[in-house]
Amino acid sequence: MKILVLNPNTSATMTAEVAAAARAAARPGTEITCLHPRFGAEAIDSAAESYLSAVGVMDIVATLLDAGTFAFDAVVLAGFGEHGRDALAEMVTVPVLDIAECAGHVACLLGRRFSVVTTLERSIAPIEDRLRLAGLDARCASVRACGLATADVDADPGGAVAAIVAEAARAVTDDGADVICLGCAGMAGVTAAISAKVGVPAVDGVAAAVALAQAVVDLGLQTSKAGVYAPGPANPRSHWPLSRALGLGS
Amino acid sequence: MKILVLNPNTSATMTAEVAAAARAAARPGTEITCLHPRFGAEAIDSAAESYLSAVGVMDIVATLLDAGTFAFDAVVLAGFGEHGRDALAEMVTVPVLDIAECAGHVACLLGRRFSVVTTLERSIAPIEDRLRLAGLDARCASVRACGLATADVDADPGGAVAAIVAEAARAVTDDGADVICLGCAGMAGVTAAISAKVGVPAVDGVAAAVALAQAVVDLGLQTSKAGVYAPGPANPRSHWPLSRALGLGS
Amino acid sequence: MKILVLNPNTSATMTAEVAAAARAAARPGTEITCLHPRFGAEAIDSAAESYLSAVGVMDIVATLLDAGTFAFDAVVLAGFGEHGRDALAEMVTVPVLDIAECAGHVACLLGRRFSVVTTLERSIAPIEDRLRLAGLDARCASVRACGLATADVDADPGGAVAAIVAEAARAVTDDGADVICLGCAGMAGVTAAISAKVGVPAVDGVAAAVALAQAVVDLGLQTSKAGVYAPGPANPRSHWPLSRALGLGS
Amino acid sequence: MKILVLNPNTSATMTAEVAAAARAAARPGTEITCLHPRFGAEAIDSAAESYLSAVGVMDIVATLLDAGTFAFDAVVLAGFGEHGRDALAEMVTVPVLDIAECAGHVACLLGRRFSVVTTLERSIAPIEDRLRLAGLDARCASVRACGLATADVDADPGGAVAAIVAEAARAVTDDGADVICLGCAGMAGVTAAISAKVGVPAVDGVAAAVALAQAVVDLGLQTSKAGVYAPGPANPRSHWPLSRALGLGS
Amino acid sequence: MKILVLNPNTSATMTAEVAAAARAAARPGTEITCLHPRFGAEAIDSAAESYLSAVGVMDIVATLLDAGTFAFDAVVLAGFGEHGRDALAEMVTVPVLDIAECAGHVACLLGRRFSVVTTLERSIAPIEDRLRLAGLDARCASVRACGLATADVDADPGGAVAAIVAEAARAVTDDGADVICLGCAGMAGVTAAISAKVGVPAVDGVAAAVALAQAVVDLGLQTSKAGVYAPGPANPRSHWPLSRALGLGS
Amino acid sequence: MKILVLNPNTSATMTAEVAAAARAAARPGTEITCLHPRFGAEAIDSAAESYLSAVGVMDIVATLLDAGTFAFDAVVLAGFGEHGRDALAEMVTVPVLDIAECAGHVACLLGRRFSVVTTLERSIAPIEDRLRLAGLDARCASVRACGLATADVDADPGGAVAAIVAEAARAVTDDGADVICLGCAGMAGVTAAISAKVGVPAVDGVAAAVALAQAVVDLGLQTSKAGVYAPGPANPRSHWPLSRALGLGS
Repeated sequence: MKILVLNPNTSATMTAEVAAAARAAARPGTEITCLHPRFGAEAIDSAAESYLSAVGVMDIVATLLDAGTFAFDAVVLAGFGEHGRDALAEMVTVPVLDIAECAGHVACLLGRRFSVVTTLERSIAPIEDRLRLAGLDARCASVRACGLATADVDADPGGAVAAIVAEAARAVTDDGADVICLGCAGMAGVTAAISAKVGVPAVDGVAAAVALAQAVVDLGLQTSKAGVYAPGPANPRSHWPLSRALGLGS
Repeated sequence: MKILVLNPNTSATMTAEVAAAARAAARPGTEITCLHPRFGAEAIDSAAESYLSAVGVMDIVATLLDAGTFAFDAVVLAGFGEHGRDALAEMVTVPVLDIAECAGHVACLLGRRFSVVTTLERSIAPIEDRLRLAGLDARCASVRACGLATADVDADPGGAVAAIVAEAARAVTDDGADVICLGCAGMAGVTAAISAKVGVPAVDGVAAAVALAQAVVDLGLQTSKAGVYAPGPANPRSHWPLSRALGLGS
Repeated sequence: MKILVLNPNTSATMTAEVAAAARAAARPGTEITCLHPRFGAEAIDSAAESYLSAVGVMDIVATLLDAGTFAFDAVVLAGFGEHGRDALAEMVTVPVLDIAECAGHVACLLGRRFSVVTTLERSIAPIEDRLRLAGLDARCASVRACGLATADVDADPGGAVAAIVAEAARAVTDDGADVICLGCAGMAGVTAAISAKVGVPAVDGVAAAVALAQAVVDLGLQTSKAGVYAPGPANPRSHWPLSRALGLGS
Repeated sequence: MKILVLNPNTSATMTAEVAAAARAAARPGTEITCLHPRFGAEAIDSAAESYLSAVGVMDIVATLLDAGTFAFDAVVLAGFGEHGRDALAEMVTVPVLDIAECAGHVACLLGRRFSVVTTLERSIAPIEDRLRLAGLDARCASVRACGLATADVDADPGGAVAAIVAEAARAVTDDGADVICLGCAGMAGVTAAISAKVGVPAVDGVAAAVALAQAVVDLGLQTSKAGVYAPGPANPRSHWPLSRALGLGS
Repeated sequence: MKILVLNPNTSATMTAEVAAAARAAARPGTEITCLHPRFGAEAIDSAAESYLSAVGVMDIVATLLDAGTFAFDAVVLAGFGEHGRDALAEMVTVPVLDIAECAGHVACLLGRRFSVVTTLERSIAPIEDRLRLAGLDARCASVRACGLATADVDADPGGAVAAIVAEAARAVTDDGADVICLGCAGMAGVTAAISAKVGVPAVDGVAAAVALAQAVVDLGLQTSKAGVYAPGPANPRSHWPLSRALGLGS
Repeated sequence: MKILVLNPNTSATMTAEVAAAARAAARPGTEITCLHPRFGAEAIDSAAESYLSAVGVMDIVATLLDAGTFAFDAVVLAGFGEHGRDALAEMVTVPVLDIAECAGHVACLLGRRFSVVTTLERSIAPIEDRLRLAGLDARCASVRACGLATADVDADPGGAVAAIVAEAARAVTDDGADVICLGCAGMAGVTAAISAKVGVPAVDGVAAAVALAQAVVDLGLQTSKAGVYAPGPANPRSHWPLSRALGLGS
């Protein structure tokens, strides 16, 4: 089975981390290809960057489709709370899995109410919106932020883990969560630390999405084309795919 | 990996069908054990039978635990809309998966809104309640009944498939569903018929639960014991396990 | 008027307390019969015990019906947050009243938002679920636990009253409740203590259910048999009623 | 026990019908006093008339309180969907019961989902609003109108009953209701006709409110004064009570 | 453009303040007429006073209509959380704007979640109800009270501003609001103080309603008469308009 | 006052129509500048095109800001159901108004429940999502499609008007709407036709947004920067603004 994992930001470091997390979750025989957009933002901390990243991952898939080299059994969108899942689902017939949604679905299988712990306070709102539209808000106890930007996390991984674990503990004690979803991609070891120190299951979105992708592919199921994910009409577009118009090669 | 699949009614025929569906969904190396209660109802079409079945599956697990022969990586409760998942989750530490919830979660990965097609009109309400408490009602377009009791389905499988397909088509046209969940266990071939004739993905709960069980076990995750699924206090019980008190051997 | 009050646990002490509370709320001419299951748990602090208790009260009613000695005008199910009401409503035509629901309905007549104060933290979730399915969550400010198990309450009634009063006061101050529902059965004097010390109406579920049973019987109304409470199909059951199969006499 | 029943419109005929319905529901020893405002509208078919009626019933109670002749154990506000209950609850300490809310609460004790059948289409919205604020919308399947104004009902009672029964049947068939609430006051015989012809319990609001008033008074409970029903500050008012300013004697 | 602004209490001082706020928000060419009821309460701090005020503003409009001197392009109801908007909308064809609703709609244009800061604790519930029926609760983070009655505000304007600013700051910090709506009418300078000290946009309801009235009139839109705001049937009313019956001249 | 109106698709014809609608709604002294993206889709009928259009309008604003030529008092995003409003609100301090949200807010001022009539069936879901996140779903009776693509509308304007009017009539009759929002931009004369033939107010989103922009600017209010619309961290971006990287001049 071949899974295309799309890191929506342009950071090669982050892409490597996401790829590692995806491979760690994949079972033998599952092949992970992890790509990032050819243009856009190195980190995604705003709605503007989120939209840019959605177009960036659309551009990756469009380029692959145009080249006739899209040969994957599932697509994982590895941005926690970012846009783009619905557009990708229009473009391909294989299942498209969003890591925020997958973390929520897996959490629902393990406990009664889950909390998400993300990076910056400003990321709470888009994650709440995403969970709400995905119908996952009913079992979400809270979305909390540890207050660290992506750059801070990179600069001090140990401190970041401690901050996230502390916030996870608050979610359990104050908000009644019994499962924690890690609300950012590419942080090795955090889920283990949460489980060890807070005593609740901790779900990593990339791992959850890879596992669910495998499950859905095993079931022989694909994206529904009977509703909103049907391909749209062939409206004329200029400069598309953008990477080709920008002269950015494969 | 070993998965215990619990058919909540006492029909050996139905248990064999559920086992077959579970095995068809399992990947190589996953071992399915399918059991039914030692007492209770042959079919479950009422709240009374649903509670009886919950105690019946609790009895199976209690007997295995008492005998020291509970050696499974996950438990699947194969009653669509029946009670008991939360009690089983209290009793064991491995993941416990309900087929109605799993069908809903998988459907959410494939489309925007799903409908459930079940047997009798009177089963609609408990399924609605189950989905609502599971937080899956937001994306549920409708729960519909094809009007056939379990016995009717057994007597005329071909007619049953046609009735279910017709109801699935109404769910898509009238209710805006783009995915169908099959709201009963043990009917071979129905999902294929729905996909072929209605043109939408169709999810079988037993298959979905087995696939999700494999996914969750792969992720190394277990039932949260930090909340409502913690084991309860050791209150004295009489005649428990009931099967032993009834003299029903292993 | 004859009301059958069912204490879902098997504690004779608790049954006597529930009977006393029911009789204190009944008007002259109402006859209270209070029974407990012939098997099951002495106290109900888990989902497993709750399902067992549902089957236990079903067994009482089935035995009475089989013997032709069911001659009651209404049934009260005296477990706060326990399962079983819907199964009983299928089995009989007279009204079946659940004490958690009745406490909530009466509270709605007296104030704007009510809180429930129950025993253990782990009982909060099932009570929330029960209120939600009953449509009573919109006016429920909170469900709170005083932290005492049933056994603790028995061992130190005075301390239990103080703990419940303290939690009720927090519900009023912190959650905006203006009515308190006592979330457990059989505690004499607590509602008076809450009213005296917190200054809000306090509703006891058993008393509320008896009063509402009288009201509904006075109105000449019965359980609707046009929907989900219609009797189910006559599916074959083994070992039913369980008490007879267990050799437990009347 | 003495219950004050307030018919919010000024029709003496309607007041007599409401009084008769209340007395029919009261048990021996309960004394019903039924009054209507000294000014206002003969029928209430608009928000303007509903506000006018709220002030009219406030005026009755204020006059009684001023004269020291308010000696009732409970107050019933007999307008289905009209305003005023909260104002009355501020003014007195005894329970105040609204017939729309009481019909809904009783319906919840009898079935899973209730529908209201009212007179004119334009009355649907205020009834929906009232049920929503009362937290009763979750179990309300629909509010339907039979299309007859109050005057039409008076002119052709037989035709009105037939129209209401037909609409009740649609609520059961099309909306899934299993209990019907009669959404207007003072129509003798309609609930019996609904039960007979549609086969579901039918709840009359006046009867339900009288029965619940008796239940709450039996329980020794009163309106909570810890929240929104506490008496307001003594702001100066001109021309109050209006009936005195208008020279309308007792 | 001519806008009729209705202050629902009978305080001439407050009417002057509301008129000033309305005129400050009006653009050149918009003429503001500000009136208060001829009877009723000087301040509105209860449901009873709120209903009285609704009838008071209805009386103003009825008197103008009867006299043939209603010549306004829009009506603003300047009571924050008071009743009456729907009745006025039935009576006239021009747009009728409620200041609580308008403050909420404008707040939605500026941020993600707004809080209301009102006077007394007892005003929170009616404002919550009003916002809920207006569909504005989904984006309302909280309704908070500064604890001062209208009279207190008049006696110590500076202290009142400080109290309101402090409560607004708590709404931002504790409840996640990013816009504040001032939940009372006629307080000059408070919105400026909130913006300056709390750093969020602050919306005054009177100003918002005048601005939205101008917008709607500019668009050539009027109150819909196709639904609940259609004029009701001509039911007979006694003593109406009340002010004429009371001998209160124009 | 200067308002920047952004047509999110790249059609010059549509841009001219939107500009005309905006100018028709603007009052004297308001200057409308209407622009469309330098790249993207000529029509927006899919999630992919919607994201592309969001980046397109972001690109316009970024280019203006970079050039120091952004001198507007408000921004209107003229895509009904398209993405991008939140990103623009991060980028500027002046108010940013979305036409779908503005149509909904204005509709709430005129009636009880509004319906949206849009073009293709596939546009219903994104509009529902947009209204839901905007908190406007509570008063939305339905979103309906007339079945015509944008190209169809252009080819046969008269037929399109008839189709939209017919769908609006269904929304009023079947869904209980009393106000209609036109769910697409740039169709002259449709609102007048709806009002004339269906008898309800009809709201055009572009006109509503211009009117509300004027109202908010008149009130001196700006986008809140205390929450999610604060500018994000300065994460490195490549090829931004895209139009510059693409060599597309001003």
